[in-house]
Amino acid sequence: MTSSRLWEPDPKLDLVLERVIDVPPDLVWAAWTKPEHISKWFTPAPWTVADCEIDLRPGGIFRTIMRSPEGKEFPNLGCYLEVVPNERLVWTDALLPGYRPSTNPFFTAVITMEPRGQGTRYVATAIHRDEAGRKQHEEMGFHQGWGTALDQLVALAKTM
Amino acid sequence: MTSSRLWEPDPKLDLVLERVIDVPPDLVWAAWTKPEHISKWFTPAPWTVADCEIDLRPGGIFRTIMRSPEGKEFPNLGCYLEVVPNERLVWTDALLPGYRPSTNPFFTAVITMEPRGQGTRYVATAIHRDEAGRKQHEEMGFHQGWGTALDQLVALAKTM
Repeated sequence: MTSSRLWEPDPKLDLVLERVIDVPPDLVWAAWTKPEHISKWFTPAPWTVADCEIDLRPGGIFRTIMRSPEGKEFPNLGCYLEVVPNERLVWTDALLPGYRPSTNPFFTAVITMEPRGQGTRYVATAIHRDEAGRKQHEEMGFHQGWGTALDQLVALAKTM
Repeated sequence: MTSSRLWEPDPKLDLVLERVIDVPPDLVWAAWTKPEHISKWFTPAPWTVADCEIDLRPGGIFRTIMRSPEGKEFPNLGCYLEVVPNERLVWTDALLPGYRPSTNPFFTAVITMEPRGQGTRYVATAIHRDEAGRKQHEEMGFHQGWGTALDQLVALAKTM
């Protein structure tokens, strides 16, 4: 049972960013799981991270506030689902911390990292409720936004 | 961090059934996690379980169909979040299997079992999005329904 895959991304509903990057999985993991790192790469410049709170365990909080160049703040509140160091990080905004169902679910994120030589095969998947959610995320600039943020993550990881 | 509790039940939002029962945790666990057992206790008679599907791992499916005495069927589709044998089982209908946000979230369930002598301290908590959800569940007969189902679980466990 546990060897079978739970799901395959559905192109109608999901968005996937996949790339091989030249920093190792443990640095990618660190970048994703420490607030002081998140604040340096998570939002494509000139957006910034105004705040970040992490309780790294299933059911724990993952909260960020993104700030636009005009100073407008966009809070995101979610809950970790899977925490497998250097391999797999899953969280969702369909649940608040402690697994309480949220009022405005948008997506679940699955980040996986596998060693590739000295680097990492990095896959970020955004899982939406419906096609409208996937389209909205695409129009918000998922591919460019997450891609630019990943460039920033790699640049940061090289300084660690 | 991991020693602190994630949350305390909120009486405005959550419903709790707590009881010490005279069957051990491993039998309670078996009753909760095998479809052939679920079908024998999960719905207070004269309701029945028309179908049950379980993939017992985080992200895996927990699907039941309850059938009313008049033959009307009520499907429930959810996703396991935590699977700790003989201790703790968590699932939610805010996510579909594979963690996809659902369209009609109602509650997350946390079932805990601790040994008490030859028996079990059993706590079932239903975590709702808002007060309306808690009230609706209460009016659906949460306390009586889950209590009667638990009586049935205990009776079944004694035959195992």
